[in-house]
Formats: sequence, C-alpha cells, structure tokens
Amino acid sequence: MDDRAWLQAMLDVEAALARACASEGLVPREAADAIAAACDAARFDAAALGQAAAAFALPVIPLVRALREVVGEQAAPYVHHGATSQDVLDTAAMLVARRALVPLVEDAAAAAGAAARLADAHRATVVVGRTLLQRALPTSFGLKAAGWLIGIEETLAALVAARDTALAVQMGGPVGHRDPSVGERVAAELGLVEPVLAWHANRVRPVALAAALGALAGALAKVARDVALFAQGEVGEAREGGGGERGGSSAMAHKRNPVASVSVIACATRVPGLVATMLAAMAQEHERAAGGWQAEWGTQVELLRLTGSATAWARELLEQLEVDPERMRAHVAQLAEEGVEGGLGASDELIDRALLAHRAAPR
Amino acid sequence: MDDRAWLQAMLDVEAALARACASEGLVPREAADAIAAACDAARFDAAALGQAAAAFALPVIPLVRALREVVGEQAAPYVHHGATSQDVLDTAAMLVARRALVPLVEDAAAAAGAAARLADAHRATVVVGRTLLQRALPTSFGLKAAGWLIGIEETLAALVAARDTALAVQMGGPVGHRDPSVGERVAAELGLVEPVLAWHANRVRPVALAAALGALAGALAKVARDVALFAQGEVGEAREGGGGERGGSSAMAHKRNPVASVSVIACATRVPGLVATMLAAMAQEHERAAGGWQAEWGTQVELLRLTGSATAWARELLEQLEVDPERMRAHVAQLAEEGVEGGLGASDELIDRALLAHRAAPR
Amino acid sequence: MDDRAWLQAMLDVEAALARACASEGLVPREAADAIAAACDAARFDAAALGQAAAAFALPVIPLVRALREVVGEQAAPYVHHGATSQDVLDTAAMLVARRALVPLVEDAAAAAGAAARLADAHRATVVVGRTLLQRALPTSFGLKAAGWLIGIEETLAALVAARDTALAVQMGGPVGHRDPSVGERVAAELGLVEPVLAWHANRVRPVALAAALGALAGALAKVARDVALFAQGEVGEAREGGGGERGGSSAMAHKRNPVASVSVIACATRVPGLVATMLAAMAQEHERAAGGWQAEWGTQVELLRLTGSATAWARELLEQLEVDPERMRAHVAQLAEEGVEGGLGASDELIDRALLAHRAAPR
Amino acid sequence: MDDRAWLQAMLDVEAALARACASEGLVPREAADAIAAACDAARFDAAALGQAAAAFALPVIPLVRALREVVGEQAAPYVHHGATSQDVLDTAAMLVARRALVPLVEDAAAAAGAAARLADAHRATVVVGRTLLQRALPTSFGLKAAGWLIGIEETLAALVAARDTALAVQMGGPVGHRDPSVGERVAAELGLVEPVLAWHANRVRPVALAAALGALAGALAKVARDVALFAQGEVGEAREGGGGERGGSSAMAHKRNPVASVSVIACATRVPGLVATMLAAMAQEHERAAGGWQAEWGTQVELLRLTGSATAWARELLEQLEVDPERMRAHVAQLAEEGVEGGLGASDELIDRALLAHRAAPR
Repeated sequence: MDDRAWLQAMLDVEAALARACASEGLVPREAADAIAAACDAARFDAAALGQAAAAFALPVIPLVRALREVVGEQAAPYVHHGATSQDVLDTAAMLVARRALVPLVEDAAAAAGAAARLADAHRATVVVGRTLLQRALPTSFGLKAAGWLIGIEETLAALVAARDTALAVQMGGPVGHRDPSVGERVAAELGLVEPVLAWHANRVRPVALAAALGALAGALAKVARDVALFAQGEVGEAREGGGGERGGSSAMAHKRNPVASVSVIACATRVPGLVATMLAAMAQEHERAAGGWQAEWGTQVELLRLTGSATAWARELLEQLEVDPERMRAHVAQLAEEGVEGGLGASDELIDRALLAHRAAPR
Repeated sequence: MDDRAWLQAMLDVEAALARACASEGLVPREAADAIAAACDAARFDAAALGQAAAAFALPVIPLVRALREVVGEQAAPYVHHGATSQDVLDTAAMLVARRALVPLVEDAAAAAGAAARLADAHRATVVVGRTLLQRALPTSFGLKAAGWLIGIEETLAALVAARDTALAVQMGGPVGHRDPSVGERVAAELGLVEPVLAWHANRVRPVALAAALGALAGALAKVARDVALFAQGEVGEAREGGGGERGGSSAMAHKRNPVASVSVIACATRVPGLVATMLAAMAQEHERAAGGWQAEWGTQVELLRLTGSATAWARELLEQLEVDPERMRAHVAQLAEEGVEGGLGASDELIDRALLAHRAAPR
Repeated sequence: MDDRAWLQAMLDVEAALARACASEGLVPREAADAIAAACDAARFDAAALGQAAAAFALPVIPLVRALREVVGEQAAPYVHHGATSQDVLDTAAMLVARRALVPLVEDAAAAAGAAARLADAHRATVVVGRTLLQRALPTSFGLKAAGWLIGIEETLAALVAARDTALAVQMGGPVGHRDPSVGERVAAELGLVEPVLAWHANRVRPVALAAALGALAGALAKVARDVALFAQGEVGEAREGGGGERGGSSAMAHKRNPVASVSVIACATRVPGLVATMLAAMAQEHERAAGGWQAEWGTQVELLRLTGSATAWARELLEQLEVDPERMRAHVAQLAEEGVEGGLGASDELIDRALLAHRAAPR
Repeated sequence: MDDRAWLQAMLDVEAALARACASEGLVPREAADAIAAACDAARFDAAALGQAAAAFALPVIPLVRALREVVGEQAAPYVHHGATSQDVLDTAAMLVARRALVPLVEDAAAAAGAAARLADAHRATVVVGRTLLQRALPTSFGLKAAGWLIGIEETLAALVAARDTALAVQMGGPVGHRDPSVGERVAAELGLVEPVLAWHANRVRPVALAAALGALAGALAKVARDVALFAQGEVGEAREGGGGERGGSSAMAHKRNPVASVSVIACATRVPGLVATMLAAMAQEHERAAGGWQAEWGTQVELLRLTGSATAWARELLEQLEVDPERMRAHVAQLAEEGVEGGLGASDELIDRALLAHRAAPR
C-alpha cells in the first residue's frame, strides 16, 4: 500500500480504460495498446508525481500529464478518455484494497484454522469461565477457542462479502452520466464489481469495506485481550509462543511480554476512530465532494494496514499459543474447593457446531 | 425505546424462556403459564427497577426478583431458569432493535420511493452538476435524485440484511455452554436468529447493526447536504416544502430555514462516534465483559433513535421537496453563456437502472 | 440535565437579557421585571414546547412565543429583545453545563481525596508492579494510588479551567454584530465569561469543555481498570467495598462483581466517540451552522451525564476500596522466590510530590 | 516526523540520559561523553532497527543494543542506565511533537495574521450574513474574518499552552519509582517539562496535545468551509488565490477548484477520530499498558501531520484570499430589494476587540 502500489493501480486503471475505449470504438486500437504498454510504474517518478499532486489536491492530473508524455504525441489525446480524476482514483483505491485483502484474508483464515484446532484439541480441557473479570463457573478451553473462532469467522465472512460486492469500478465521467458500457468493460478486466450508478458522492462502498475491517479488528482484539489476561503471572493458563528473544524487556530480563497480543490490541484500538472518519465523510456535496472524499484515501490505507497487521499478529498468536491444561485444571479445582462446581454443559456439541460453521465458511 | 419498552422486552424474553423450558420439560407447564402471564410491564414499577439496577450495574437482577414476587411462591423457582442476566438483556436489546427498525425501514423505503419519483419525473430537467462546490457540467436533476435513491437503497439493503441475520437470541447461560435447545425455542418464539454459539463476548451482531445504521445515516446526510446547498438564496434550485410556520426564525421574519435538512445532518453528525464506540467495545474479556458490554446499551439506543429520526426527516424532506426546474435551466444557460456546454449523457439509461434496482430492493 | 433544567436555563437567559436591556435603556424597567418574574419553568409546559420545537429544529421559538403570552401584551414586545435563538440556546447550554459541573467537580475532588488517603496510608505497602500485564518489579501500593491521584488532579484542573474560562455568554444577535454591552451585563448576572466575539460558528468553547470531560473520564477509566484487574480471583489484592447485595449475580451466588469499576469503564468507553462528534461538528457554515451546531446539544448532555456518572462511581470506588496488603506482600514474596527482587525506589518522595500537588490543586 | 526523526529523537534522549547520569555520579563522565557522541542517527540503520522492533512490539530494545555496539565495550554497560523502554519512547515522542509544533505554530500564527489583516481591511465591506445556509442580514466581511481570527487564536493559545505545559520528560524507570533527580536533568537539557510523577500509564499529556490539535484543526475547517461556500459560482464573493495551474481539473478546463479549502477540510475530517483514539487508549493497565500505549504512537504522528498540513494550507488560503467586495455589495443590495435591510451593528468595535486579542496572543 505504498506510493508505488498506488501509482501502479492508477496506471492499471488507465490501461484498462484505454482498452475498454478501444473495444467500444472510442479510441484507436494502436493508441490503446501504446497506452497500456506505457502503464508501468517503473517508468514514472512516484516522488515527483506526489509533489505535483499538491497543486490539484489529488495525484491524477500530473499522472495523466506524465502518461501523455510517455505515450507520445499520437496516443496522447486518447489517454484518460472521457474519465475524470475521481474515476481513476476511486477505481485504483479499490484495486489497492483488493490486493491488500489477499494476505489479510489468508491470515484471517489461518487464524480461524488455528482457533479451530485449539477448539477441537481442548474439548476436555476444563478452565475457569470468567465474567466481569471474576471467576464464574467451569467451562472448556475448547469452547473458549470456539468462541474466538466464531468471532473471526463471522467478521471474515462479512469482509469476504464486502470484497466480492463492494469493491466496484468507478467510471462515471465528470458529472457521473457517462454511458456505463466502458465501465462494464473496465470492471470485467480489473475484476471489480460494476455499480448501478457512479458512486462519486455515494460512499456506501468504501464505508462497507471500512466497517468490515473494523469488525474483524474488534473480533481479533477480543482474542488478544483474553490471551493477555491468561498470560498474567497469577493466572498463567496460556501464553504466547514464539521462540528466541521475542517479548524481551529492555530493563527486566525475567519478563516475557505478550508481544503479539499487545500488537493486536494496539492496532485494533486505532481502528474504530478510522471507521468513524469514513462514516463522517459520507455527507459529500453534489456530484463530487469538497473535502469528504479526499479524507478517505489515507484513512482507507490506514484501515487496511492496521487491520492487516492485527490479523497477521493474531494468526501468529493463535498458531503458536501455548496452553497449560494443568494450570487450568488446578484453578478449576481451587474453585471447587471454594464450593463452586460445574460441568462442561453442552460444550462438546457447541464446539461441533462451531467447527461445522468453520468448514462451511466462505474465503 | 424508552424504559417501558425495554422493560417489556425483558419480560417478553422471560416469558419465552419459561415457555421454552416447559416445552423442554425443564419447567412445569403451569409455572411457565404463570410466568408468561405475569410478564406484563404494566405490573412492574419501571422507575423503582431502574434505581435498583445500579447496585448490580444492570437491570435484570431486580427484575427477576420482582417477577418472582409477582408469580408467587410456586412458580418463583422456575423464573429465569438456567439463564444469566446477559441472556435476558442481550435478547431484549435485539427485540428493542427489531421493533425500532419497523418504522425506520418503512420511513427509509418511503424516502427511497420519493427519490425514485423525483428521478423519474425529472429525467429531462437539466441542472448544473457541481464538483468540489464548483459548477462543472450539465446533468439531469433526475440523475441526481437517482443517486440519492441508490445511496438509500444500498444502505437500506444492508440494514435489512442486518435485521434478518444479526438480530439473534442470546441464551447461553452463565458461561455460555448451555444446551442450545432452549435457545432455539426462544429464538423461534421471538422471531430472532439462532446463533451458532452464545455471543456474550463476541459482539459481531450489535456491531453489524450499528454499522448498517451508520451507513444509512451517512447516505441520508448526503441528500440533506445537497438540499441545503440547493436551498441557498443564491442557488435556489430546490427547497424544502412543508407548510405553515415551519422553518421560521425567531429574529428574521423573511427567513425560511431548511429544518428537515438541518435535522438530518445534525442526527447524522452524531452517528459515526457512536459506531466507533460499538467497535471500540468489542475487546470483551473472557466469557463476559467488565465494561465493554455495558457500554453498548445506551449507545445502541442512541444509534436507533438518531438514525430513526434522520430517516423520518429525510422521508419528509424528499416527499415534500419543491424543485424549481426554471431556475435550474437558467443556471445551465448561464454556464453555457460562459462557454461551458454539455448534454445529459446516459442520464436516462442510468435512471432506468436505478429505478430497476429500486423495484427489486428488499424490505 | 433533563428537559425541565434546560427550560429553566433558557428562561434564566431570557430574564437576564430583559434586565440587561433595561439597564441599557433598551427596554422599560417594568417590562423587564414582568419578563423576569415570568421566567419560571413551572409556568410552562415543557412537553408541549418540546413537540413544537421540531418545526423549527430548535426549542427557542415556541418558548419565546409562550413567554410573550405569559407576560401579557405590554411586556410581550420586549421579550427576547435583539436576540437570536442561538443566543439563548448557547447561553442556556453553558448554564446547564456549569450546574452539572458542581456535583461532578465535587465528586472528582472527593475521588482525588480518597486516592490521596490511599497514597499516604500505603507508603510501605509493597505490591508487584505490572507492565504489559506481566509481573515486573516491586513498587508501593501508595505510589500506585498516587498515580491515580495525579491522573485525576491533572484532568480535574483542566476541567476547572474550562469551567472558569470556556463557559461564556452568547449574545451576538442574528448575525453576531450586536453591541457587546448587553452581553457583558448578561454574563455578569449569570456568572459566565464574556467572549471577545459571538461564537455562534466558532465552537472552541463547547469543544474545550468536551475535551476536558473526555480526559477526566479517561483518567477515571485507568483507575477502574486497575481495580478490576486487582479484583480478579487469582490476584485478589484489592476489591470494591460497598456492603449489602451490591455486585451480586443473577446466576452465581458466590460471585461479587466489581460493579463500580465496570460502571466507570462502561461510561468512559462511550465518551471518546462523543468528543469526536463535538470536534467533527466544528466546521460550521458562515454566521450560524446548518447541522453542526444542532448536533452539539444532545452530545454535550451525554458527555456531562456519562462523565458525571463515571465520576460518582469512581468516587465511591476509591472511598470504599478494600486493600489486601497481606496478599500484595505474598505476591511480592513469590516474585522474589522466582529471583526477582527490588525495593521501593523513590516511592516515598514521589508520594510526597503527589500529595503536595493535590493540596495545591484548584477546585 | 519520519523514521529518521524518531530515531534521532530517541538517540537525543539516550544522550541526555547519559549526561544526566554522569552529573548525578551514576555513570562515568567519559562513558557519558562516548554515548552522547554516538547518538547520531546517521550512524544507525533505521530500516533494520524498524524490522527488529517487531519482536519486542517497540523499537527501543534493538536501538539500545545497537547503541551499545557503537559505543564499545567500556561505555556499553552505561547505555540506557536505569531507564525502561517507555521512558525513551515517551520522551522521544514529546521531542518529535515539540519539533513538529515549530512550523505548525508559525503557520497558525501567520494564518491568524492574515485573518487579522482581512478583518482590518474589510471593516466597511458589507456582506450578506448567512445562517443555516440562508441569507439572513448584512454584516461586514471584516467581522467575518475577525471570527476566523478568533477561532484560530483561541485554539492556537490552547496549543501553545499544551506545548509549554504538557510536553514532559518521562524517566520513571521500569515501574515508575525512579528517583526524579535524573529526570529533572534530562528535562532541563531537552527543554521539556518535569512531571510530578512518571506518566507511563497516566496519559493526560498526550491527550492534552491531541485535543489541542483537534480544536485547531476544527477552527481551520470552519474557515475553509466558509471559503468553499464563498467560492461557489452562484455566490462568488471570495475565491482562493494562488497562480498558475493550481486548482485545475483533469476533465474540465474552465473549472478552478478550491484546492486549499478542500485540503484543509480533508485533513480536518480525519482528526476527530484520531483524538477519540487517544482518549479511548487512556484506560492503561497498572504500571504500563498492554496495547493502549502502543496505539498512541502512530496516532500522534498522524495528528501532528494532518493538523500541520491543514495549518499550512489554511495559511496559504488566508494569505492569498481574493475578496470581491463588489459582488458582496451587490448581494446585499439584492437582499435589500427583497425588503431585508440592516447596518453593520457594532462590527467595527468588535473587530477592534478581535485585533486587540490578536496582538496580545501567546506564540
């Protein structure tokens, strides 16, 4: 999601646009080919384009100009045919998002898989259930892990749905009334959804993506908080794995900090405010907004980056979690000594339900 | 969504629980009947229960106690059978939400209908398309209204989906491992979804509702902002209808304030922070949370109230909107005099697409 | 902060305005006396005024009308002299805030006092210092309490400063250019600050109040989270006091929930989103805003209510906290057995610094 | 505020710490000199340190290790003497903030100066005052600019106060009970405030900075929104200056976009969510937090970056604003034709008050 990735995504849009226009007979085929061939980020100076962008409050104008220079005089008039800056930037933002979601969805699926294995392996591992941070009644650690699993699966399913329905092409032209045939072709080529109308000032799509990322980050934060609480010295029922010096302290050699949990929580703490920003930016004026739209770009990047980071850490956390069934059992026994006993309830059946949902989950 | 509505919703849950337990053979049928018969908010002192709630940081404990007194000695032991406070409160919150969504969805559908009528009626009404608050190129007012329509339809569809899939029963018992058979019966009776697992500390469902409300509020704010801009004296291309003294000023008799637009924007401005609160509260500890869950109740009420209010105002705004095609045409003519001309593009075809989507929309 | 309190505050403003206008020779003294005498909330129907408010998107217009009826024909023309609705509502909001701050500041000061007593009493009480939720090195519980104290004192000082400098009269008239002499008199009578200019669309003052409330709520949440962690069964080094059935569970008789901590955290979790709303509303148009201003009213009420509630709970929490020095010492001893030892450092001197700051703190 | 700036700031803290420890007799003077001499970012590989940081969830541990290698065997044991990672990172964050505030305060002061000049120059320039986006009564453009001025001055004064009182050294050691004498010296050397206690888990200071930045951004957004509204073709009473191709459009040659206004609004739209994140992160556990603290770093950088950018754009906007008094007068005349007349009220006196406040403002 760095400047280079954005630049390439914008160029991918210009290339797809040129080809679509050629197919519609709006642009000569050779010009389209020349444009598409030129759309390689390596041929452009990302830093210079970034600086030039400030004068226009967006990067597309200097990019189109640079692209026209690269393609030469004959093809130049056919660059960016019938498009407006926001067409290119919105479509590029969707491409950037879709690419960022590949490792993110993979990590989330792997985290879910690890939680599923914990659930299955610890069906009979008793643990003290805790409510309001007080010891309540026994349950199984497997059911706890199944709860983590379902939290991840349900939010991941929503994210996968957002990926498959919200990431759309934008190709409405200056005021949104462009014939949709070009947009259809661009959507098909780039693997994006074709919207009913241009969504220049209807920001349901970026908001849907943001909300799905926010929910996933929240579900992961729940897992991380539980692990951080488990890892307290006085509890000690589970702790983060990962060998080497991981989690060391600069001042206290005996300490082993729950680095992955802390990182998940830190990332997830930053996400809700960003989702609020995306929602607050929705009141966009007329055909294209004076500020609200421009507030989205960096926010969406941060949302993808932070949720992606939280997901990678959560995967590692769950895949390497060290569980201490002995200690869990000892704490249950102590609770029983204090007169509080209880069985595992329907824990086993519930774990089966969760694993079933996991196996049927979309990816 | 006042205290009385919450009280009745909690009583509805206790009644459904008693009947479900009777069907499962866990509670005598007569006891269940006695409990269900007693579950009428008129028989309880909502204010006294509210005060008693503080000592427990939730209202269920005093309610269960009061209900036991009302049902008499024989049925009393069967009240709240196997349930935990959060089972009742979460399920009641979902009932409250479902009930609040009835007028909200109706108003949103009516707002969409009004936008659709505007789109259809103003296919040929030229208007200046405006980007970054600058005059850009001509378009049709019908396409503008179609844009409002699609914004409302897409967010309403997501809200309807949240209503139909996220509003679930909660019946996990103290640590979430209760046999799901009772919950299944309660879900069926109350018309709520049955979850895979108890969601005491997995808050995907309230967050899904919150996000859907947030997106709808944002889509309505876009409409309201456009109308407020249209209603400026120097633009004057559309204004709010509504007769009488509506929109009057305390100091300036000549002014007519865009009351509905302002009210929509005011409500919608308050929504993003509330959605962020719901997301931030997701990191809930172990089997039930110490603070995060308790932060949700009032927030969800505010979200339903503010989005509901925004929707009612937006419906009125769109149903009564007074459009001035003459003035729109004059401004397009003036732009042409300044050398900027343009047609309606694919406006007509795009309006058809939007109306088609409108007619196929879920409710 | 209920409807009645708002109504009386608005009437207080109208009364002060009438008297100020009389002193400036703008209104006959008898008319001013008649108006001031009529400004008693008991003489008005708050509910009816509330309903009438919707048509204007604010409550001042129907109130002025009702007040004119109450004062009779002769004084009626002098009601609301030269003022605009926002003058009355903004000034009333400041009065409501100032009144709400009286118990809030008292509770916060009492919470600070309780923390100071704990700091002083527990200078020699060793406790395990914990970082990243891991046991680190010994410290004193007195220093921990001193940390809570300083957190409260610093945020309380900022809130007291906001009370004394940000709560200002608003008396600019329809477009803000009213002669400031009337406003000066109103400010003096109501005990509010006189601003340089009318602040109809410059919302620094409500935002300053909101930010100060937000910081105090955050400082209290830190205390509450520490206590909730102390109260875990496996730690058990401190717990909430408060007798009777406080903290009981509907399903588990052995549990004693940390009700005050949970309530503080629940309230504080809801505050950041509200502060964000106040900030997001600042971009207010021209002389008076179309939506941003109207978003503030309910938000400010919620901020005062939630922070006030968090403060009352935190006071109770700190005043009744039950500390278990034995258990603290045992955990330090256990850490020493694991090879981690350490003294109290400069704990004593630091507690003295904190107590000194406490005694010098503004109220 | 890039990685290099952070690296140098952390090294500046280590250097100041070594010198302070030498002055206190805790570290040999030669070792301190060697350490201070080595603390030059050019001698370290920022990228490699960044990667190594992940294993510890913070960058200080690998930095201390690298610094020990650079200073050689003799001085190595005296590096980072008695400090904990958070001491270095918190103090460095304060240094980074203070440095970032230099241009930010300068730009804000220049923006205020430009607004003051507009206020003074346009005392007699009549303009239509607008409320709820409706034309209300005449006022002076000078008073409008004075309102912008006071909004900037009041928020800038709060920011300057935060700079001078909230930016503190952190030197508490692993659990916060380090003797404050070393911290006093470090504070004096680095020009930071000395706190009463270590503030590892009392986050009043970063929050105070964040809130001040948030309020300034909001005050600037108000200016930008007014200018964007003025610049509408139908209003045209003021527009952004700045020559060349600034504000050009990729699709419409006749358009001149209000680039500075849009950029201010875009930045300011992103700020409230970030302030909420800082507030939400305050509930930090025990002596040092597991996630809340770590959420602050990137958020504070974003707050400084976005508010800094908004301030630079607002300065340019105000310094280059092109006002059209003719057009303002024509619109006032048109309002008079519609029967709405009015004078400038106390506009002149109010402008004097604002200019007086401007000249007395802290920097």
